[in-house]
This record gives sequence, structure tokens and C-alpha cells, in this order.
Amino acid sequence: MTAPDFGFSLLDVCAGARRGKITTAHGTVDTPAFMPVGTAATVKAMTPQAVSDTGAQMILANTYHLMLRPGAETVAALGGLHKFMNWRRPILTDSGGFQIWSLNKLREIDAEGVTFRSHLDGSRHHLTPERAVEIQDMLGADIVMVLDECTDHPATRDQAEESLRLTLDWARRCRDAFPNRPGHGLFGIVQGGMYEDLREEAARALVGIGFHGYAIGGLSVGEDRVTLLAMLEAAVSPLPEDQPRYLMGVGRPADILQAVARGVDMFDCVLPTRSGRTSKAFTRRGEVNLRNAHHSQDPRPLDDQCPCPACRDYSRAYLHHLMRSGEILGAMLLTGHNLRFYQDMMAGIREAVATDTFAAFSAAFLGEIETGDIPEHS
Amino acid sequence: MTAPDFGFSLLDVCAGARRGKITTAHGTVDTPAFMPVGTAATVKAMTPQAVSDTGAQMILANTYHLMLRPGAETVAALGGLHKFMNWRRPILTDSGGFQIWSLNKLREIDAEGVTFRSHLDGSRHHLTPERAVEIQDMLGADIVMVLDECTDHPATRDQAEESLRLTLDWARRCRDAFPNRPGHGLFGIVQGGMYEDLREEAARALVGIGFHGYAIGGLSVGEDRVTLLAMLEAAVSPLPEDQPRYLMGVGRPADILQAVARGVDMFDCVLPTRSGRTSKAFTRRGEVNLRNAHHSQDPRPLDDQCPCPACRDYSRAYLHHLMRSGEILGAMLLTGHNLRFYQDMMAGIREAVATDTFAAFSAAFLGEIETGDIPEHS
Repeated sequence: MTAPDFGFSLLDVCAGARRGKITTAHGTVDTPAFMPVGTAATVKAMTPQAVSDTGAQMILANTYHLMLRPGAETVAALGGLHKFMNWRRPILTDSGGFQIWSLNKLREIDAEGVTFRSHLDGSRHHLTPERAVEIQDMLGADIVMVLDECTDHPATRDQAEESLRLTLDWARRCRDAFPNRPGHGLFGIVQGGMYEDLREEAARALVGIGFHGYAIGGLSVGEDRVTLLAMLEAAVSPLPEDQPRYLMGVGRPADILQAVARGVDMFDCVLPTRSGRTSKAFTRRGEVNLRNAHHSQDPRPLDDQCPCPACRDYSRAYLHHLMRSGEILGAMLLTGHNLRFYQDMMAGIREAVATDTFAAFSAAFLGEIETGDIPEHS
Repeated sequence: MTAPDFGFSLLDVCAGARRGKITTAHGTVDTPAFMPVGTAATVKAMTPQAVSDTGAQMILANTYHLMLRPGAETVAALGGLHKFMNWRRPILTDSGGFQIWSLNKLREIDAEGVTFRSHLDGSRHHLTPERAVEIQDMLGADIVMVLDECTDHPATRDQAEESLRLTLDWARRCRDAFPNRPGHGLFGIVQGGMYEDLREEAARALVGIGFHGYAIGGLSVGEDRVTLLAMLEAAVSPLPEDQPRYLMGVGRPADILQAVARGVDMFDCVLPTRSGRTSKAFTRRGEVNLRNAHHSQDPRPLDDQCPCPACRDYSRAYLHHLMRSGEILGAMLLTGHNLRFYQDMMAGIREAVATDTFAAFSAAFLGEIETGDIPEHS
């Protein structure tokens, strides 16, 4: 059996938003897509079946975490990441660049690569562009990300330029090291700090090297919303229409809608999963904190229109009780709800693009979030 | 719709072991039965569906914990415990006596009842036999337990006698307070410390009062195995054949087999659930600690004959990785496996009693546990 070529079909465009389909070795992904984060080869508090039940078609796993524990060679010997974690659909792995940048104060970067200490045991590790690709290939990722340097924020123009030169050099080396395998793709990452022209230059240079898709990295690192969107627009403008664009690590529902309107196809973020473990639920009417005492006697579901198990089978009072009691089931139910909310939002976006109603959908969605939670139960 | 009367049918007896069926307002329970513990209105790390999928037909919930949080009145206002936690099958609630005894150094017991401080916030609470029954009735328990005093261990004969008098007096008051409702039953609890004649006397006295079933409490509190079984035999001997017997808080698989051989029908224990959160798995070949490093590269399932998700979909190496990484999914999978192991053991026991092969089943089961885990993966 031969895997299909890695590919992207652009199906519809509406008010800047795109609808498409990514084809990988492990199946297809409808875009715009949201990828739940499965850092350590598990989407926290979820079985793979439960993740799939939310509508997710692709997940993200973290190269940095998996190379340290259990190790890429171990995962490879056990048949690869899909088999290891029993997720049979597409997987995208990040390259480790962002985690090394955010978790390691002691990292040393040179032209060759980056040396860092494990956050687990302090051991020294060295990662090069070639090794980052090799690790992701051993994991069996459907989408491999180039090793990049996440530019510090804030950064001077000189710093941003220097960082970008390194990232582009590493991107070229990753491209050369990437073993073309049917159904597997390599994505470049647009950096450039908070400088529009550098973002544009980065995107153009990456297109020149040639990748299966293009990511925008180094955003949502502390800058304001206006800056984020300006950088995003600059980064996207030179990218080819017929390849997927991925905004890394973003974000809140409103961020996603605004990025979709600027032509982004793929997203990942820890927010729905992390929030699920800390009592925060995303709903059509904004965020709800289930720990708040006013839920304690509330017999109503979290969201009466949501078909997820948390909303279908339980009261707000019960979810409140679980979170107050520190019960694992609370994390399981709220994570499932939040992922379902994100997936339903993405399905709504795709439907709106297909029916040429994206602008209206987006406005209505943002408007409903602004109305706030249902009135307190009396 | 009228609920059926609470009842017990004794179907087979073989080598002292019994097979039967309990009928309650929320369905029937095949005995011998093991009840997973759902302390705070959740079997930790499990959805109700996952609990049911292991084969469990009845769970136990803790009156002590639920009266403190979220409170019996809250649960009642929300439609009762079954609806609150979305478990539609039978529920047995303990009375709180054991938890007050084990969690509270500051308890004060008098003839009226017991005063104790909440382990959550230090607040003072008073529990009488009548209130214990009222709370369990508000929760909607199918099987209500009398409030008892768990006799200290060790206890002098005078202490054990005095404690037993109090327990029997409270049992009488619980019987008087119990509102007979179709499908709901009240169980007495045999105490008597480590004195065989007191255990017998206690059982006889309870039968004189008259309950829907009889529990044996105050065992597995530090005594040796021989003493436990002697007390169990003394307690069971005066009990009527046609009513269920329940050994509270016991235990390991071998304990359960030995108690079944002495005519016990019902069990509960935190071992399978608690062990699941601390990396310990129960298997046909004894206990396995998944944190041990020799599992780290092992591609084999935990138990190749077990149909649970942990064994069906994952390697020992993956379970090891989850437990080492502190991932919630590890607790979910191992808890599910352990509950499935217990339920499969109970199903095996019932089948053996039905086919008049219990002694052989028990010997083979205990023999296989003794063989120890499969040889290490090389």
C-alpha cells in the first residue's frame, strides 16, 4: 500500500478566509483546523478516542519533550508515535525550537545548533537542524517542522535580523536533511520579530527554499493584538495560495477567527486543554470558571447546545463539585468540552467559508462571546 | 412505574461460595459482586461509562465525604446521587462511621451520636444514626448502611463489648428511622473487634432486629489474615442464607477469594482504583509496578489476555512513560485495567460457582498469581 503524496487542496475562499483539505500518510485534515496539543504523547486527560470524538483530525506533539522522555529512538523502536500513543490520524510535531527558547535560560546557540539542559534532569543536549528533522522522522510525524530560533521579544532590529538569518540558514539545512517520504511534509517557519518587512522577507525566503507548508512562529509572545495581526498579515502576504499556512501557538477563539480572516489554515494552542484542568470552560457565551461558588447549586448544563459528555450528562453543580474536589474526572470532562468547543468552532468556520458567509459567522460568533455567561441560577 | 422490592435470590452454592442476584430500584447486581469506590460521587479517573464497561453493576459512595461536600441537601435538590454523577445503576452508600473513625482524631462519641471535625475546613459536624439514614435516603442510595462505631484495634474485651453495645443500639435506631421504599434496602454491620463470640453475638442480634442484608465491618484494620478469616467465619455463621453478606473494605484478590469461600456476596475496596493512580496493576500473574525501569522499552501489553483499553491499545513501555511523566491518562488506563481485572475475577467466580467448580477455580487463580509477572523483555 502506497501512502498518498502530501498535499493541500484549496476548496473555497471567502472574505480572506480559506477552506481546504490536507492529505497526509495518516489521512486527511479539513482546514481551517485546530490541533489539540499532545505534549508528551498524550492529550492530557483524554483518551485518543475521546480526542477523536471531539472532531479533532490531527494533533500536535512536542519534539523537545519526547526527545528527552522517552527518547526518539525508544518511540521508533516501539513502532513510531502513532502506534506508541494509539493515535492513528495525522500528527504534526514541532521542532523543539520554541520549548528550548521558553523553558531554557541556559541555552547556548551557535551556527551549528543549540545546546540546552533538560528541564527534567539537567542533562546536556545538543540539537541541530539535521537532528531535529531526524528525530521527527523517527517519531513518524506527518508534518515535520524546521528547527527555528524564536526571536526574543522585545528585540532590536539588529537582533531580529541576526536571529532571522540563523533561522533561514537552519531552514535550508532542514530542507536538505528532510527525507522525502510519501504523505509526509516539511513546514518552514516565518520569524522576523515584530518587524513587518522582516516577516515579509522571511516568508519570501522560505518560499524560495520551498516547503510543503508555512508556519508563522514567534507570535503571541507578549505583543499586543494589533501588532500580532500586522505581523501575521506581513508574513502571510508572500505565501503561495495553494499551500497551507499554520499560526503556531495561537490562541483564543477570537484570535483564531481573526487569523482565519487573514488566510491561516492551521492552529494549535494549549488553552483548551490547560484551561480544562484549571476549571475554565470555553462556551459560546465566553469563558466560564466552574470553580466559582455561584455554580454550586446550578442544575443547568454548562452549555445546553453543546453535545459533549460534560454538557450532555452533568450539571454545572456537578462540574463545580469535581473541580472543587480536585477530581480527575473534572479535568477529563472540561478538557473534552473545551476541545469540542474549539472543533465545533472550526467546523462552523469551514461551513461558513463554504457557504460564503464567513464574515457574518465571525461577527455573530464574536458577538455572542461578548454577551457573557447565562444569568446566575436563582 | 413501581420499583421492584429490594431482594436477594440465592442461585447456587458450591464449596461454601454462593452465587446470587440482588434486586434494587436501579437494577440487579450479580453476586459475588465487587463495588468500585466512588468516594466523592466519582470513581476517580473514570467516566461512569468506563466504570460500567469494566462490568461493574454497583458502586459505593461515601456518606462522610458527600455530607461535607457538596452536602446531602444539595445532591437531593439536584435529583439525587444517581442523576448528580450520571450513574444509573445501583449505589450503596456507607454510613460515614468508618471515615469518622479513620480520618478524625478529634471525634467525640456518645450514646446520641458522634461529633467530628471536617477534614476539609475543620468545621464541627454531628452525626446520629437517624441523620445517617436520612442523609443516605436523600442521596437516594439503593443500599443504606447503618451508622456503626468501628471498634479500635487492638481493643480490650471490655472496650469491644462496649463498642458493640453502642453499634447495636445505633443499628436499632437506624432500623426504626429507615423509610421503607421499594427497591431500597438497609444493611446492618457486624462489629465485635477481634473476639469471635462477640462477632457471633453481634450477627445474631442484628438478625433479631432484621435487615435487608448484613455487612461485616471493622476488619482489615491491621489484624493478621488468620484472625480476619476467623472473625469473618464467626460473623457469617449466624446470618440467614437468603440474604446478602457484604465484607466491607476488603481487599486483595486473594482476600476476596477466601471470603467468597466463606459465604460472602459483596465487596468494596479502594485498592484497584488507588493502585491505578500509583502505577500498580493487578494481573493474573500478580501485581506489576509500571514505574519500574525494565518496562521502559517493553512493546508487550500489560496482560495479553485482558480486553481492557490499557491492554488492548498500548504497550507496557507507553504505560511506563505515562506514569513516569505523571500523565492523567496513565491513571485513567490503569484504573480501568484494575477494575476490569476485579470484575473479570468476580465473573469467573460466579461462573465457577454456577458450574460447581469454585474450589478448582480458586486454586488455579491463586496459583497463577504466585507465578509472578512474565519474564523481563530483553
